[in-house]
This record gives sequence, structure tokens and C-alpha cells, in this order.
Amino acid sequence: MPMGAYPTPQTAAEILARVRRLRPRVHCLMNTVVQKFTADGITVVGGIPSMTSSLEEIAAFAGKADALTVNLGTLDAERRRSILRAVAVVNEAGKPWILDPVHCDYSPQRLAFAQELIALGPTIVRGNAAEMALIGTDGPGLRIQTGVVDRIGSGRGAVRVENGHRWMAEVTGTGCLTGGVIAAFLAVEPDAVAAAASALAVTGVAAELAAPLSRGPGSFGIAFLDALSAIGERELLSHARIEHDQD
Amino acid sequence: MPMGAYPTPQTAAEILARVRRLRPRVHCLMNTVVQKFTADGITVVGGIPSMTSSLEEIAAFAGKADALTVNLGTLDAERRRSILRAVAVVNEAGKPWILDPVHCDYSPQRLAFAQELIALGPTIVRGNAAEMALIGTDGPGLRIQTGVVDRIGSGRGAVRVENGHRWMAEVTGTGCLTGGVIAAFLAVEPDAVAAAASALAVTGVAAELAAPLSRGPGSFGIAFLDALSAIGERELLSHARIEHDQD
Amino acid sequence: MPMGAYPTPQTAAEILARVRRLRPRVHCLMNTVVQKFTADGITVVGGIPSMTSSLEEIAAFAGKADALTVNLGTLDAERRRSILRAVAVVNEAGKPWILDPVHCDYSPQRLAFAQELIALGPTIVRGNAAEMALIGTDGPGLRIQTGVVDRIGSGRGAVRVENGHRWMAEVTGTGCLTGGVIAAFLAVEPDAVAAAASALAVTGVAAELAAPLSRGPGSFGIAFLDALSAIGERELLSHARIEHDQD
Repeated sequence: MPMGAYPTPQTAAEILARVRRLRPRVHCLMNTVVQKFTADGITVVGGIPSMTSSLEEIAAFAGKADALTVNLGTLDAERRRSILRAVAVVNEAGKPWILDPVHCDYSPQRLAFAQELIALGPTIVRGNAAEMALIGTDGPGLRIQTGVVDRIGSGRGAVRVENGHRWMAEVTGTGCLTGGVIAAFLAVEPDAVAAAASALAVTGVAAELAAPLSRGPGSFGIAFLDALSAIGERELLSHARIEHDQD
Repeated sequence: MPMGAYPTPQTAAEILARVRRLRPRVHCLMNTVVQKFTADGITVVGGIPSMTSSLEEIAAFAGKADALTVNLGTLDAERRRSILRAVAVVNEAGKPWILDPVHCDYSPQRLAFAQELIALGPTIVRGNAAEMALIGTDGPGLRIQTGVVDRIGSGRGAVRVENGHRWMAEVTGTGCLTGGVIAAFLAVEPDAVAAAASALAVTGVAAELAAPLSRGPGSFGIAFLDALSAIGERELLSHARIEHDQD
Repeated sequence: MPMGAYPTPQTAAEILARVRRLRPRVHCLMNTVVQKFTADGITVVGGIPSMTSSLEEIAAFAGKADALTVNLGTLDAERRRSILRAVAVVNEAGKPWILDPVHCDYSPQRLAFAQELIALGPTIVRGNAAEMALIGTDGPGLRIQTGVVDRIGSGRGAVRVENGHRWMAEVTGTGCLTGGVIAAFLAVEPDAVAAAASALAVTGVAAELAAPLSRGPGSFGIAFLDALSAIGERELLSHARIEHDQD
């Protein structure tokens, strides 16, 4: 896709195929709650996840990664230091990273740390409505607000992805997993809007395919992984709804 | 329900409906093994879970919570300090908390820490038979022993909940999840016996509904979440077995 | 089985039955990503898992265990100290332990720590091809390389287990879970080759039984637990492929 063109379902199919061919490594500084769910999600779309947050090792793992996701869900002192070290490594190497400021609306320390990280230049900042209202639009990083409709950027040129299912909100970690999938897409696509819209279309369409096969949020979480593994060009062309705001 | 009256299946249905309407926040100092399973369980019954154990943040998270669950499953030095700080915050605010002294029969330090916590006045202490035998009945906190039959309190006035399924013992974390669900019920119901009996009836009946839809413990764990999401007054009135010991 | 004889499907069935009868305790110093999946796997084959990595408690937990699994997946400073203490306890008691040098190909510190542990005499070292190439064959510990075919030992007398399914590689933690199952088998069988071949046959056959019941990697991970719970002599005798290299 030419840089700056609007992403389409075809864009999503092409970038997904590239992830599956190139198998990018995604290092995740991920809250301990959803490490396995996120790792499974990255794996089934075609990436290779790693998860350590050990301060001694983080530079080696971040150095081998093609993209990084920084998630603030469970945050202790060592993890903060590891995050800063990992960001320094990927920034130095010019690799993309995404910040997921989970629960920055719960604790002032967490919001302050999120803002410190934004000053370091994430490629993307992704959160829910409450989180993104506090994060604001100042500073570097493409802003993505996920919810019933996912919004990428703002104002003229903003893109909306209108896929998904209400059960996503009842399965802990679908947002965190989506952050990991966006990182995998960023690893193979330099246009952050295209990478993000594609990743959100893939996860949103997978959710729509999974829901009719599920009895409730428990089986939905499992069927969602199955659908992420099976989804391809056909499903994206028929289901993805990527819209852009007109001038 | 009037304070002191015996809880019934109707009580359970009413408190469950209240959880779904009020959406209480439950902060969980939860072992890292079952954080996602517990968070999913709290979410599907209607609560809003949070999970951090970071010492810098725990006061902010505990301060926003309507109830707290303290689970000793994986216990390191920082987590102990965070637990004590969280308990101080909820005690000061007069909010309920439940102690789950997991594996206090494995390590003397763990038993000593459990007893230190009991002295701080938990609303409820819940464990299995081996754990509760060591915890004893001295000190504050309603005692609940879960197993094939769940027992709330002892002697005259004790309540038994006779729901459940043997596969619950083969899925790591059903007890921990149940502790989280009890906390959600305590957040909206001041009578601890009624809250506990209702939460145990909800989880036990959900297990009974899930088992026939499952092939084994793996699919049971998933169907259990589906059933917790779907369960309502009709299922509770027809399946819940809440008994009380006669004079 | 006589020590040194080649393990057969019948061996696997006998040792599995022994695990279910004796219910060995397996302590897991397990990465935080797959703690629940591993605990569920150990439970459904018949063992009793525990998971703490707290330095104050590890000696008590390791002392109660019948076998230990040491997995390097998420490795911080306290966890390293806890691992060394746990290994000292089980070595002193003459109990078996298995080392799973996860991602030792990602970080030089991790490889160095794996080699330090190998010098302490693990019963078994298990890894994938990339990991085992770095670990080599020097030093103590039966070597197992898992993959499409699992190889136990090398050269004359080596044993191959040819069961499994490609979806195992798409579910985070199947290798870690397998390490836990091997530990449970080692706890009841002193012949490490027999214990390992049996555990690998059990997990590999369970995967083969689970795959046709699954829609993709998500439901496969769940069906795999169901199959591990249900598998017995009949399934092993008809499906297990345990081969040994001829002279």
C-alpha cells in the first residue's frame, strides 16, 4: 500500500499474509494476567512472541524482537526499569513499539509513567475511552481508541474499524492481545495507520466469526483464537468494515 | 433479605441481579497462576476485576475497589507488603475483604502470614479442608470451608451449599475464582452469610450446568465461565441447594 | 519395567496408572505465562502441582514435592535464587528434577544460568532443537529434544516418540506442560528413559486424540486437557509410537 493511502480490507489481507510469511518476533512487556492469551494470539496470527520482563535479560530479548508491546497492566518497580531499557533498545534500532496504558485512569503514578513513556516516542498508543481521554493527543505516537468502534487518529484522515463483538469486553485480555497483534503487524508494515487498521480488522472480524460458534464468553475466548488462526483474505474481504472520515 | 435470616435460592438470585446492576469493582491480590481465570469469572458474573500487586499502586487500586480478595497462592516479599497496604486501605474505608489462605498447610511462613492477616479482620476466610483445619475458628472472619459440600460457619446456624461438580477440583483456580465471586457478592450485600451462600450457589450451580456440556476438565473450565455468564433466577431456583443446620 | 529395557506403549500405560494411583506432588518453578496450563496438565494426568517461586517459601514447597520442574521462561533475580534453593533441596533428598532451558538461545545470561544448573545434576534436560543445540551433550542429565519427533538420548540406545500434532506448536506452553508431566512420571519411575518416553507418549497421543475434536489451536489446547484426563491403556496401546534406534 502506498504510504498515506487509506487502508482497505485488501490491505488487511495483504499485511496478514506478510505476517504469516515473515513470522516477526514480538517481545511483550505484558501484564501477568493475560500473558498466555496474548502469546497464543500472536502465535496464531503468525508471529513469534516472547514475554520476559527480567532486567538482566530484557535488552537481549528486545534486541532480537522485530516489534515491542508495552502493557502497563501489572506494574512493579523492576518491570518499570525493564520497560525503559526495552524501549531504549528498540528506539536505538528504529523498531516499532506500541504502548497500552492499561488502567492509567486508576492510579496517578501509572498515568505519570504512561506520559513518561509517550515522551520516548511510541509508534502507537492504544487504550479504551477512559484511558485515552487522560492520555490526550499531545506528544508523539499514533492514537488508537478501541471500543465498539475502533478509532485510529482523529479529525480529517481518521480511520474507523467497525468490526468486533460485545463478548470481547467480557474476556479479560482481548485488548491486550489486540495490542500484541498490532505490534506483529507494525513489524512488517511501516505505515502505522495501515498496520493498525489491518490488525483491528483481523481481530474484529475474528470475533464476529467466533461468536456464533460460542455459548458464552468462555467458549468465545477459545473460538476467537481458532478464528484468528483460520482467518484469511476471503473472510476479510467479506466482513472487514474499515471506514475513513471524509473531508 | 433481613440480616440474620437464612439465605435461600431466591436470595442468591437477588444478590446476583444486584451484582449485575451495580457492577462492583473487585481488586484481587491473586496468585499469578489463575489471574486470568479469576478475572474472567468476576467479569462474567457482572463485576469489574483489577489485579495489580505493585506496592506503589496498590493503595490507589484498593481505594477504588468495592471489595478485596487476598489470595496467598504465589507469595513473594513485595506481594506481602502490598497485601498489608491493601488491607489497611479497605479496613479504613470499611469495605469487605476475603482471605484465601491457599497452601497454608505447605509452609509455616505462609500459615503465620495467614494468621497475621486474620488478626486484621477479614470479612470472610475461605479455604479447603486441610487449610481450614490449620486456620481454626479463633479470631475474626466468617469461616467457609469449600469442598464437595461447602460449609459456611459452624455449629448452630451453619449453612451448607451442596452444589458443585467433581471436575471443579481438576481445574486449577476454581476455588480462587470462587473467592473473587464471593468478594463481588460481599461488595453489594452486607450480610456475609447471605453473600457467601449466594456466591457458592451461583458457582456450584454453574458447575452443574457446565458439566453435561463438557468432555473433560479442559472444556469444563470453559463451559463453567459460559454458565456463570448465563445463570439467572430460573437456574438458581431450580438447582440451588442451600441447607442450614437445625437446632 | 526392568532398568535399561526399552520402554513400550505398555510401559507408558503402567506408569500413567501409577501416577494416577500415587498422585505425586510436582513443584513447578514455571514461567508466569503458562502456570495455569501446566498446573491443569499435571492435575488431569493425576499429579498435584504447586507453583510458588517465593524465596522464603521455596524450600518448604520443594521439600514436600516428589519431583521438581525448573523452567526458565520468565526469569528474574529472585526466581534464580529460588531455583538454586529448590534444586539444593531436591538434590539433598535424592528426588528427580527436570530442567527446561526455555529461550536459552535468546540471551547469553540465560544460557550461562542453564549451564550452571546442568552442573547441579538434573535428571533430565528437555528443550527444542535450537535450545538443545546450545545445551549440547556434556554434563549430567538425560537429554530430550522435543519437536515433530521427540528424541530421548542420542546414538545407540536412543528412543524416539513419534506422536503429537502440529497444533502443539501453536499453543503456548505445551512444551512447558510436557515438562511438568515428565516430572510427574519421574516421581513414580526411577528409570528416566522409561519415565520420559511414557510421558511423551501420553502427551503426544492425547494431542492426536484432541486434534480431530478441535476447530483450531484455541479449542485444541482445551481438548488436549480433556484428552490427557481421559487417556488410558487402550489409547496408548493403539496409538503410542515409541521406537528405538537399532545397533
